[in-house]
Amino acid sequence: MRLRRDQRAPEYLAQDERVILNPEEYKGKWKEHFGNDYPIHVEFGCGKGGFITQLAIKNPQINYIAVERAETVVYKACKKANESEQVPSNLRFLYFNVQNCTDIFMEEEVARIYLNFSDPWPKKRHADRRLTYRGFLDKYAQILSADGELHFKTDNKGLFAFSIEEFSACNWLMKNVTLDLHNSDMEDNIMTEYEKKFSEMGFTINRLEAIKCKKM
Amino acid sequence: MRLRRDQRAPEYLAQDERVILNPEEYKGKWKEHFGNDYPIHVEFGCGKGGFITQLAIKNPQINYIAVERAETVVYKACKKANESEQVPSNLRFLYFNVQNCTDIFMEEEVARIYLNFSDPWPKKRHADRRLTYRGFLDKYAQILSADGELHFKTDNKGLFAFSIEEFSACNWLMKNVTLDLHNSDMEDNIMTEYEKKFSEMGFTINRLEAIKCKKM
Repeated sequence: MRLRRDQRAPEYLAQDERVILNPEEYKGKWKEHFGNDYPIHVEFGCGKGGFITQLAIKNPQINYIAVERAETVVYKACKKANESEQVPSNLRFLYFNVQNCTDIFMEEEVARIYLNFSDPWPKKRHADRRLTYRGFLDKYAQILSADGELHFKTDNKGLFAFSIEEFSACNWLMKNVTLDLHNSDMEDNIMTEYEKKFSEMGFTINRLEAIKCKKM
Repeated sequence: MRLRRDQRAPEYLAQDERVILNPEEYKGKWKEHFGNDYPIHVEFGCGKGGFITQLAIKNPQINYIAVERAETVVYKACKKANESEQVPSNLRFLYFNVQNCTDIFMEEEVARIYLNFSDPWPKKRHADRRLTYRGFLDKYAQILSADGELHFKTDNKGLFAFSIEEFSACNWLMKNVTLDLHNSDMEDNIMTEYEKKFSEMGFTINRLEAIKCKKM
């Protein structure tokens, strides 16, 4: 999601204790920061944040970290979370480049990664920018715990097909694959803002779960 | 494809030298039978046979074996092949249950397997009848050569998703995955009869290639 820079963002984000401005300092210390031993789930590319905010409200025994690259997007996501009826205390926002995720999470510190409707970067020469490119998968494999999972959904057929190739090449085990999420067995799907809009327009949603350590 | 049994089939098939009535006898001897050292490509579930007949005409240096369970279907496929302008000499038909494919092919005897629009068996309790069920993949892995490939296409989203899970669980490497074959980079796609009909109706076609020996 691309937005014009919002001048109010820096001030808002600086005063919101749910926003982590210096996430590198928390590497290896996220559970300490949350003050409990609950698992850490992160969303890379949280967009407007509706998905992870709903998850955080629903699952108080999981700690959620929403990551977006653009300050203005985090600002909007954060404002929205603060406006929700129950403001979840188990949710943090940070603006950070996923490329450097190993700078903010220690090995095996993360139990689950969500990737929702990531930018498809449709041009072949931009393949290494896709968040399921093998270079990213290698980093995710570092920060994910041994039984950690990556949950991925997208309406983009090209990105989904590419991702299957990448997961396969990197030896991740794929399960619960569907090419039509909203007509699948999956219960309790939480829709992102984008997902609501595009599924109403008739686009089918693809989804899969991947585990870094292939069980042979 | 289900058809009423055609009374003319047995007589027709018995007189056509392109039809192999006792395929178990050729196990390990297919190249000898063809009289050359060209690679063996097989299609499991050839339906009306248009796909493999076109391939055989196009690639005289490959030996093709079309397999269908139902005698009447083979009869129709075979008649159609015989009516084509160039009758390919590198093509054989057999009616046989793929379940027993290791009875007719020796280990590593096959260089490529095609599965086109296989019966999706949509009910969960019939999952083990789907031609990409892991029980089948294990058999294919036996008969495929070290660098052998399986080429699979289907319009059925459920079957495609299931197949990705099965290939992944059985450690096959997937490549050239597309969720929209007719709008993909793939050149030289040969359409099956079914594919022509259903893509004209607006269904998208999914396709992938899988290699049994995962290159790590």
